[in-house]
Amino acid sequence: MTNAYETMRNWKWTQTEKIVARRAFDQAVKQDLDAVLREAKERAAQITKPAELWELEEWLGNQRRRIDREFDYRYSVLPEVFAYLLRSGRLTEDDLLGLDRAKLDTIRRMSSY
Amino acid sequence: MTNAYETMRNWKWTQTEKIVARRAFDQAVKQDLDAVLREAKERAAQITKPAELWELEEWLGNQRRRIDREFDYRYSVLPEVFAYLLRSGRLTEDDLLGLDRAKLDTIRRMSSY
Repeated sequence: MTNAYETMRNWKWTQTEKIVARRAFDQAVKQDLDAVLREAKERAAQITKPAELWELEEWLGNQRRRIDREFDYRYSVLPEVFAYLLRSGRLTEDDLLGLDRAKLDTIRRMSSY
Repeated sequence: MTNAYETMRNWKWTQTEKIVARRAFDQAVKQDLDAVLREAKERAAQITKPAELWELEEWLGNQRRRIDREFDYRYSVLPEVFAYLLRSGRLTEDDLLGLDRAKLDTIRRMSSY
């Protein structure tokens, strides 16, 4: 029996699929960064005590590491990345239209885990 | 010949001197932290690009490490700390009134190095 993850890693991506994937990925990264940017500004504006400066520093570091971890554009892991973004509401299936049926089904199935 | 730094390390601090030293030290720390707090808010407010978030994170880390390094309240190094704060204009000699003459002279001399 072939492992689903191994199957995924061997998927071929057509040029069209790469364009769709890249656009969806970049859009999700941008939305995430924009949200972090807005929240960072709000947090900074509300600081009244020096200790909160280092809390802001730590929060920024956590956001940077989370974003590095969550947004991994290697094709071998991209379906999992998309599944996670669907599950967390940061992408919709519409954003992925253009990927072939097998990939979309797998991504949708993984997103419901 | 006795090394000046060794002499300093063996200095005794009277209760009055400890109070004067603590007050001057705390005041300088507070002013420094307040300045960092103001600048952090300004920097955050001016951010327009995500990359600048990580510059803010790095700047905050640098400030935290600088403050940890510069403000060391061990009596063995306190004269050097005060000399540095005088030299950088973050304390005045008036802030140190109450320390004995020998300590003040040494701090003043070191601050001109």
